[in-house]
Amino acid sequence: MNIDQYMTDLGRRARTASRPMARASTAAKNAALNAVADAIEREREALKEANGRDLARAREKGHDAAFIDRLTLSDKAIDTMVEGLRQVAALADPIGEISGLKFRPSGIQVGQMRVPLGVIGIIYESRPNVTIDAAALCLKSGNATILRGGSEALECNTALAKLIGVGLEGAGLPQDAVQVVGTADRAAVGKLITMTEFVDVIVPRGGKRLIARLMEESRVPMIKHLDGICHVYVDDRADLDKAAVICDNAKTHRYGTCNTMETLLVARGIAQQALPQLARAYQAKEVELRVDGQARAVLEAAKIGGLVDATEDDWSTEYLAPVLSIKIVGGLDEAIDHINAYGSHHTDAIVTEDHDRAMRFLREVDSASVMVNASTRFADGFEFGLGAEIGISNDKLHARGPVGLEGLTSLKYVVLGRGEVRQ
Amino acid sequence: MNIDQYMTDLGRRARTASRPMARASTAAKNAALNAVADAIEREREALKEANGRDLARAREKGHDAAFIDRLTLSDKAIDTMVEGLRQVAALADPIGEISGLKFRPSGIQVGQMRVPLGVIGIIYESRPNVTIDAAALCLKSGNATILRGGSEALECNTALAKLIGVGLEGAGLPQDAVQVVGTADRAAVGKLITMTEFVDVIVPRGGKRLIARLMEESRVPMIKHLDGICHVYVDDRADLDKAAVICDNAKTHRYGTCNTMETLLVARGIAQQALPQLARAYQAKEVELRVDGQARAVLEAAKIGGLVDATEDDWSTEYLAPVLSIKIVGGLDEAIDHINAYGSHHTDAIVTEDHDRAMRFLREVDSASVMVNASTRFADGFEFGLGAEIGISNDKLHARGPVGLEGLTSLKYVVLGRGEVRQ
Repeated sequence: MNIDQYMTDLGRRARTASRPMARASTAAKNAALNAVADAIEREREALKEANGRDLARAREKGHDAAFIDRLTLSDKAIDTMVEGLRQVAALADPIGEISGLKFRPSGIQVGQMRVPLGVIGIIYESRPNVTIDAAALCLKSGNATILRGGSEALECNTALAKLIGVGLEGAGLPQDAVQVVGTADRAAVGKLITMTEFVDVIVPRGGKRLIARLMEESRVPMIKHLDGICHVYVDDRADLDKAAVICDNAKTHRYGTCNTMETLLVARGIAQQALPQLARAYQAKEVELRVDGQARAVLEAAKIGGLVDATEDDWSTEYLAPVLSIKIVGGLDEAIDHINAYGSHHTDAIVTEDHDRAMRFLREVDSASVMVNASTRFADGFEFGLGAEIGISNDKLHARGPVGLEGLTSLKYVVLGRGEVRQ
Repeated sequence: MNIDQYMTDLGRRARTASRPMARASTAAKNAALNAVADAIEREREALKEANGRDLARAREKGHDAAFIDRLTLSDKAIDTMVEGLRQVAALADPIGEISGLKFRPSGIQVGQMRVPLGVIGIIYESRPNVTIDAAALCLKSGNATILRGGSEALECNTALAKLIGVGLEGAGLPQDAVQVVGTADRAAVGKLITMTEFVDVIVPRGGKRLIARLMEESRVPMIKHLDGICHVYVDDRADLDKAAVICDNAKTHRYGTCNTMETLLVARGIAQQALPQLARAYQAKEVELRVDGQARAVLEAAKIGGLVDATEDDWSTEYLAPVLSIKIVGGLDEAIDHINAYGSHHTDAIVTEDHDRAMRFLREVDSASVMVNASTRFADGFEFGLGAEIGISNDKLHARGPVGLEGLTSLKYVVLGRGEVRQ
């Protein structure tokens, strides 16, 4: 197979399909989404068989249990897919909305219309559920999609793509609106991220290594985040009850997510009062604490042992594990400086009862999501009310933070005149 | 001079300055803008002297009259600069605005805050007025700027930068918030567009050749358009009086601007009625007409000669001159297909009295600005009510169409809680 030619053909089909998708009616898009949901329910056993063949190959290759778990299309996973499709169908259609239509002194009316981006490339690991989640969001937002999942999920993804095609066709939409890259050759990814004439944006979903490599090579803009080094700053005007629940939730609710706290900053003025209690709670959950010298002194004075000395590297490490770095800072300014210097501009929170400090934190911390008295774990498309999430962006251009349907769209200017010309 | 080191230093200073700029008060930013305006008025003679030295060198090098004209800092040009600074000071500050703050079922409030992008690099030709225009917009939007103007304007730009520095300092803002690249070495541009750690976005202002080269090499995202191949489609339900004034204005108001019409599309059903009149008006203004076979037949039947046969290349050529290509199309569908295939996604207009067709044109033409019964010449930041314009973008990500202050900003999520945690 000539990969270059194969991908060019895929790209051209996607670009062609993107035109009718952009003008597709809300009813047709919803009908397609619901038809795919119906088809998945109907073809449940066939999907599980295809997945079974993927799983057998993956086991042969010696992939670990976590990998097999992500690859497995259980009945529960299928139910979640179906439910997800119906939820996206129920979301309001963002496309075609005209906003801000105002008269100008020249007599024209100027506003903005929300339109699809065009063609979205999704690159992800061997998780079949992403095939459906991503296809659903792109379809609803009127975009064509090229999906490139992990090669170990190829059979299952191909089976899903067939069902999506049937759903699209039944709704009068072009089958090429959702295409799955049908080859495990890695050269396909290299081509996908450089064919700027056919692909408008790439959404990579996967580990840091994958994304770092794509960042190096991609010529197509990406909606992505590299890592989530999130902070909670406990101010010396914090309510200690709030600090206790927020610090617990931000770290221990789930260890492996990008919006989990990795570094706890505590104001010097409240450290003696706040830190021992927090540390005991973490240690009760077997969280390893990596502390700076001041935090060690405070904790040892409170007879807390089992501490690890934090190194400079700890302040910029995303553990994704029951490990937390802890630093005592002079106050708000030092906290903001630390977060802006060592963080990843993902999600950071302050715990304080002081209004001015809360407002300064919101304004001055340069992150995609900034929070007052709330857990960093809330940084999520569903929690923010976007209805769904295609990913999280740490970049400042275009979408920032959790990205839902709107992040897959663009605004163009519309001008309504009655024969006006420029003077 | 070690260019790499010099530019890295500039970048680092800009990044450092971007922090206090992001939190600068509206009052301080406006004070700086007005102080620069005052300083330019005060130093008018010194600026003209510096410009005189630039001009002498440019004449020695044999630059043409148009070049010298753009480089010249006349009293009128200085007045316009001063006026521009005061206008930007009078614009509303976009930074810090919080929008859409809504309660979620979890109890948190989620909204978005408008914040600066960070560091903007501006690359432009030898036009000193751009130094002030661009600096003013970046300053007002809370960004730090690195300005790289054409090397022939170096003395004048350096003198202007000094005045900007004095204005910033007087207002308590960091002088490094606006820096001018102080070398004519072209390697400086190569470094500027690749130092992603210090520069968040590049705005190139200049000819197609400059922008095409930057697109090849830039690793920093750009706000730019490559060319403006704009269309007017005269539908068979057009009001011919409106068509006459719009077609005249869109082509002949100014020949050299990016929002000037380059191709006129006329519906077959109205061509005999509309086209001869339009052609005579163009020929009266000595506009060369490059026509397809059908248009030639219609025009020759009306005894109009002096026509040039359009080639395939004409449909994708930006003339920037008194030349117009004309094509007869079957109707709306063919017009939309032609525009999407051959246009540059900049600005396109339909002339029609038919509501459904107008709405289809707005939705289906994939351009940054789409218009009904108005001249393409309106595609402009001032005409659209943005107050000012840093450039026009044909891209779909981030800003699209004329880009004002808002295009130099980003939205981050803000979350206000009372101790909420994720379930």
